[in-house]
Amino acid sequence: MALERTYLDWNATAPLCDEARIAMMDALSLPGNASSVHGEGRAARAALEKARRSVAALVGAEPAHVIFTSGATEASNHVLVPEFRMGRSPLKIGALYVSAIEHPAIREGGRFASENVHEIPVTGEGVVDLAALEVMLAGHDRETGLPMVAVMLVNNETGIVQPVAEAARLAHAVGGLMVVDAVQAAGRLPLDINALDADFLIISSHKIGGPKGVGALVTRGEVLMPKPLIRGGGQEKGHRSGTENFFAIVGFGAAAEVALGELDARCVHIAALRSRLENGMRGAAPDVIIHGADVERVANTSFFTLPELKSETGQIGFDLEGIALSAGSACSSGRVGESHVLTAMGHDPKLGGLRISLGPTTTEADIDCAITAFAKVAGRRRLSGQAA
Amino acid sequence: MALERTYLDWNATAPLCDEARIAMMDALSLPGNASSVHGEGRAARAALEKARRSVAALVGAEPAHVIFTSGATEASNHVLVPEFRMGRSPLKIGALYVSAIEHPAIREGGRFASENVHEIPVTGEGVVDLAALEVMLAGHDRETGLPMVAVMLVNNETGIVQPVAEAARLAHAVGGLMVVDAVQAAGRLPLDINALDADFLIISSHKIGGPKGVGALVTRGEVLMPKPLIRGGGQEKGHRSGTENFFAIVGFGAAAEVALGELDARCVHIAALRSRLENGMRGAAPDVIIHGADVERVANTSFFTLPELKSETGQIGFDLEGIALSAGSACSSGRVGESHVLTAMGHDPKLGGLRISLGPTTTEADIDCAITAFAKVAGRRRLSGQAA
Repeated sequence: MALERTYLDWNATAPLCDEARIAMMDALSLPGNASSVHGEGRAARAALEKARRSVAALVGAEPAHVIFTSGATEASNHVLVPEFRMGRSPLKIGALYVSAIEHPAIREGGRFASENVHEIPVTGEGVVDLAALEVMLAGHDRETGLPMVAVMLVNNETGIVQPVAEAARLAHAVGGLMVVDAVQAAGRLPLDINALDADFLIISSHKIGGPKGVGALVTRGEVLMPKPLIRGGGQEKGHRSGTENFFAIVGFGAAAEVALGELDARCVHIAALRSRLENGMRGAAPDVIIHGADVERVANTSFFTLPELKSETGQIGFDLEGIALSAGSACSSGRVGESHVLTAMGHDPKLGGLRISLGPTTTEADIDCAITAFAKVAGRRRLSGQAA
Repeated sequence: MALERTYLDWNATAPLCDEARIAMMDALSLPGNASSVHGEGRAARAALEKARRSVAALVGAEPAHVIFTSGATEASNHVLVPEFRMGRSPLKIGALYVSAIEHPAIREGGRFASENVHEIPVTGEGVVDLAALEVMLAGHDRETGLPMVAVMLVNNETGIVQPVAEAARLAHAVGGLMVVDAVQAAGRLPLDINALDADFLIISSHKIGGPKGVGALVTRGEVLMPKPLIRGGGQEKGHRSGTENFFAIVGFGAAAEVALGELDARCVHIAALRSRLENGMRGAAPDVIIHGADVERVANTSFFTLPELKSETGQIGFDLEGIALSAGSACSSGRVGESHVLTAMGHDPKLGGLRISLGPTTTEADIDCAITAFAKVAGRRRLSGQAA
């Protein structure tokens, strides 16, 4: 295992970027609990608020509207709840409408009872079906409370960009709330919570080069707020209790700052690499199916199926060639399940798909290694005659 | 502000210990999501499971019974819930009995409705009133479900050790569950979940020299489990979803390992320092009231009230002298509230108390600085004639 390895699984987690690493090293020298009022506490507080401004800037929000959480999963469980407050008045949400291709953290519906979670279908191209959403919202029973719609901005498996602003318009037209999982969009697309017309936006640090274990629930304002998920210390203005994950938050802020500053350059660099990759794959195996190739995708993701190759087998094959990629999403302990995204798109999910996802430090050499490995893996399936 | 500062607020947060810092530096070089199956993921997984073994060892538990959370507050909200499962069967908890001196994360009752949270009084000495608990449990209405008792092992403000094993015996005698907040006990007392007869134990990384933003809910077994608080990815065997806070967990494990290995030596060292401190304070101001001085306390904490001195004023005075300490507990954003612990102990909470808390790297010189500062602060109150 002394081989040089090529990491092409940035949608699972981005390696910690240098800026985050340096910021965290600096933070290591600061003692003190950010909630304490003495000198050490004040220094920690200042670093934390700087990070909050950087995260807010990445998504076009006010710093005061960033609630730090332990990650996107917590943020999802936090905001997906039937009990809201509008100022001091309780506000009831009657049902949650989630797209069929959401991450499990959204699909499972947070604190909604499962019977109140409804699935919005997607088209064969992997795009949320807005016409279907409109029909579903027209049938929403207002007696039960307002509707809440949750649609991700970029799908984690395919990289396909979803029509979030249009979904928000439909949600708001019936007085509903709009939640946007922007985990895979942050750092890869320009992001503006107002332009998206989202009421809540969810982001994760470790997908943009920050450390794991921290994320944020970003709100449009401070009036319409979900019932807190974690109570007891009053941090984050009472919306999220618990000693702040100081060290990770500082890294998150640094990663957000560089992700925003380098956004355009990264997109150009990564888009060129993905073209090289997909051209190379098509050259090596013309029967490769690249999912979402004909619709708008974020530049870093290539999700493909090789006929006659199970994705588990393919993943192991790439791993042996020194390439780290994913079979679908890596969302639970080592489990490789069928892709609910492929199923929702109308594909037979048995073969599954393989996801190569790139990042700002990915090089042409990495791509060429991936193409070489792809050619071997694709060639081997013919030899073994392995079928689904 | 170029003065050398003395940090004596270890109960708020312990500075990151060298072992945790080194382990985290090493972890920085490992890319990969612990949930991914490729090579990088496997290396991260191994580091994570090593940390789990170290944390388990600190509390005498099985590694399989450690659920990593974003901290003790999340762990509290996780376990304090009316809905449990006993294997595959649902199990209902009817009411929660919490001591009057619990941390807010416990006192607020997690996911219990506030009307089902009952407060166990404490004696004037700051010890949970077991006779009162027994009466309360005798009156518990079993029709509503089982009772749950939550008592902390060491109080965060006073350092007073609570009769947890006895409380557990009372809880179990009526078929109830026992939850122990061991946040301030870990690394300061020998800890064994079985000896305490606790069903659930809560610990926090940053109180033992690990990083902030991580903690654990430790269980006695795997059969009796609370309804998950954060769902959606299936991590931690489905009990706690979300990408593992890898970096912080590794630091937590390293801190736990050293805390266990050095436990006896630390206790001896710290106990001697506290005696020096309290003798010094009594010499400088014989009217100082040291709370809990006559009952069993953990060795590192000294919680005191100076007559005629408000704790906020005292805290600022110490801060100006370069000493970091707390007025009560630092549990929310800069807020210095009245001490619910002093109130529960029957003291007038208006003056409040000041908490000096020591750690393994505290020196005699630190203590002497604190005594000097104490003498100045105590002397100044006479000059200003400031009264409550």
